[in-house]
Amino acid sequence: MRILLVGAGGVGAAFAAIAARRDFFEQVVVADYDLGRAEKAAASDERFVAAQVDASSAESVAALARERAVTHVMNAVDPRFVMPIFEGAFAAGADYLDMAMSLSRPHPEAPYSRTGVKLGDEQFSQATAWEESGRLALVGIGVEPGLSDVFARYAADHLFSEIDELGTRDGSNLTVDGYEFAPSFSIWTTIEECLNPPLVWERSRADVDGGWYTTEPFSEPETFDFPDGIGPVECVNVEHEEVVLMPRWVEAKRVTFKYGLGAEFVDVLKTLHKLGLDRTEKVRVGGVEVSPRDVVAACLPDPAALGDRMHGKTCAGLWVTGTGKDGRPRSTYLYHVVDNAWSMAEYGHQCVVWQTALNPVVALELLATGTWSGAGVLGPEAFDAVPFLDLLGEYGSPWGLREQ
Amino acid sequence: MRILLVGAGGVGAAFAAIAARRDFFEQVVVADYDLGRAEKAAASDERFVAAQVDASSAESVAALARERAVTHVMNAVDPRFVMPIFEGAFAAGADYLDMAMSLSRPHPEAPYSRTGVKLGDEQFSQATAWEESGRLALVGIGVEPGLSDVFARYAADHLFSEIDELGTRDGSNLTVDGYEFAPSFSIWTTIEECLNPPLVWERSRADVDGGWYTTEPFSEPETFDFPDGIGPVECVNVEHEEVVLMPRWVEAKRVTFKYGLGAEFVDVLKTLHKLGLDRTEKVRVGGVEVSPRDVVAACLPDPAALGDRMHGKTCAGLWVTGTGKDGRPRSTYLYHVVDNAWSMAEYGHQCVVWQTALNPVVALELLATGTWSGAGVLGPEAFDAVPFLDLLGEYGSPWGLREQ
Repeated sequence: MRILLVGAGGVGAAFAAIAARRDFFEQVVVADYDLGRAEKAAASDERFVAAQVDASSAESVAALARERAVTHVMNAVDPRFVMPIFEGAFAAGADYLDMAMSLSRPHPEAPYSRTGVKLGDEQFSQATAWEESGRLALVGIGVEPGLSDVFARYAADHLFSEIDELGTRDGSNLTVDGYEFAPSFSIWTTIEECLNPPLVWERSRADVDGGWYTTEPFSEPETFDFPDGIGPVECVNVEHEEVVLMPRWVEAKRVTFKYGLGAEFVDVLKTLHKLGLDRTEKVRVGGVEVSPRDVVAACLPDPAALGDRMHGKTCAGLWVTGTGKDGRPRSTYLYHVVDNAWSMAEYGHQCVVWQTALNPVVALELLATGTWSGAGVLGPEAFDAVPFLDLLGEYGSPWGLREQ
Repeated sequence: MRILLVGAGGVGAAFAAIAARRDFFEQVVVADYDLGRAEKAAASDERFVAAQVDASSAESVAALARERAVTHVMNAVDPRFVMPIFEGAFAAGADYLDMAMSLSRPHPEAPYSRTGVKLGDEQFSQATAWEESGRLALVGIGVEPGLSDVFARYAADHLFSEIDELGTRDGSNLTVDGYEFAPSFSIWTTIEECLNPPLVWERSRADVDGGWYTTEPFSEPETFDFPDGIGPVECVNVEHEEVVLMPRWVEAKRVTFKYGLGAEFVDVLKTLHKLGLDRTEKVRVGGVEVSPRDVVAACLPDPAALGDRMHGKTCAGLWVTGTGKDGRPRSTYLYHVVDNAWSMAEYGHQCVVWQTALNPVVALELLATGTWSGAGVLGPEAFDAVPFLDLLGEYGSPWGLREQ
């Protein structure tokens, strides 16, 4: 296996650090628009080489993939670059993995009730070509989407006879010393996720838009009690890939995603939207043009550089309700917690990016060994969950299960 | 009288529209960095001519003032340009007026308890030179500071034998159709005023820093009931020139300024500060450098262009407490209200900028007729209030008085 890692930012660098301890691959080409950043992430292992790439250009990605005889392209950049990397991988004859899917566009008339272009629609529109050429695009294989989708498959296969709701719930008790406000994940992506109309899927609505519908941002607030000492966090509906992926492979009545943003973060996002500072279209300021959202990101500290000042744990998981294998009502939370103190001590990467990067490394190992195989544009729930969950333990970061 | 108006933005254009109806001057040179904007504001009257000027350059201001044989330089731009215009006017031998004073810098160690460089300190440091050359800098002669300071002098001369507090209170019930958030005044200036440490003056503390001290932003919230149907608005301490000016010429025990921001605006300002988006120092974004505060301003609609969508009234005033001329306790609010519907119908300018621009026109008329005269760096309270307040009525916009 020869991997082209596109993006040496927070998640890309953590991916390199995790993969460096495994022996399932021959080479990782660490590529970034900023060659210096790629070189830094590639320095830790002799099987790594650095390269420059323009992720906004399918030609640039394909040329590099061909030059390095790459078998798998691993996308680790902002979701706005999904399509050029996805198409570049296909053009170069490589398989493809990502941790976020092609972007949505709201319904032009009814943005807060009907779907327009959904997350991943652009990628799924090319599924036949991938399938017919026998090639695999494994989409949404970070932690969320990713591990959450693996949990969904596991719950359906091993825990439940009928599922009422697959509800991804994400929360943390992270704090950052020395900053009034310091998000622990890319603010660009967080704005994109949280201000787009949240997506919900219900089987009973399958006759309209396939069962997918949208709501107002931050809808259906709910306090979820997270495990391992994190405790209760207010969660709200957010647009996320799980809601697109799970209904395609797992039987359920309803699929949701709620993010434990907390009241302060919700207020910040609402204010950014109110002032138009969430916009990506450039505005003219003096003699130059800039995207307001890029300015917001530039004003905040780099989340990947905050590890030393962070405290607490982050939890990703899936709350499943329905009927157990024994025919009785069941409510189970399958989860994965990472303590920032542990990930910093073990890997030198903060827990949120480390937890995201862990899962594609595990998946690539399963693909390298042939445990997982397939063709087409497939989500994590298209594969057997058990070997994946077992490998998490071997990587030193086991998952958990709590009956509610 | 030959006036150089520096700045043809919202307030400058309203100044031109108000002055056009009066006959006390020979010429107004309307100057702006953007010549087209100056030409537009100068088009209404044959005594007006347009010119280009760089308000950040004292040389540019002085050259234009000399070329046009200007007697009075009227500063109508953002307060960051006070010093070059002030110095340019002096260099050209002209008198000077402004509506906001030179900017403050917080105390380096104790920003929220002690003053550093106060509003206007830079201007007052040159007072002797102005006085010795027999020239007048009439500072802070907008509505607040400006009319509020005239009220202070009137209260001391005609209403009170002893003043406990001179408390400027500003509030409105303005709404703007079609925008989730649209400030009715320059957001750049509002951020500057509201996020700097608020200033308070107390005679009993005169032995430390001359009686001036600072607090945390948004301190001492108070609900003030504004007249003419505006009603109760939550007001908080804000840094403002009145607190610098009034104690120099009017006897009082305490001087404060509270701005009726309302809870939503306070939250927006706090969030901007939390994210570092209030900063004026440039940040690098992609290949360009911009000031985050300028980006915030660029994302919001131009307040001067919102008049047609605005509804409601704005009120500026001074709440005076103490002992009346009859020896009995007295609490009086002296105020000036402008209804946006009236200012739009009469002048085509929205009420907030119109109300600001009205007062320097009145002051210039008093200087032109010799009713007001003086030398040095003087606030509005250094002059007799009665002719000023009488002229307001003649301009069609009388003031009011309410016993509390």
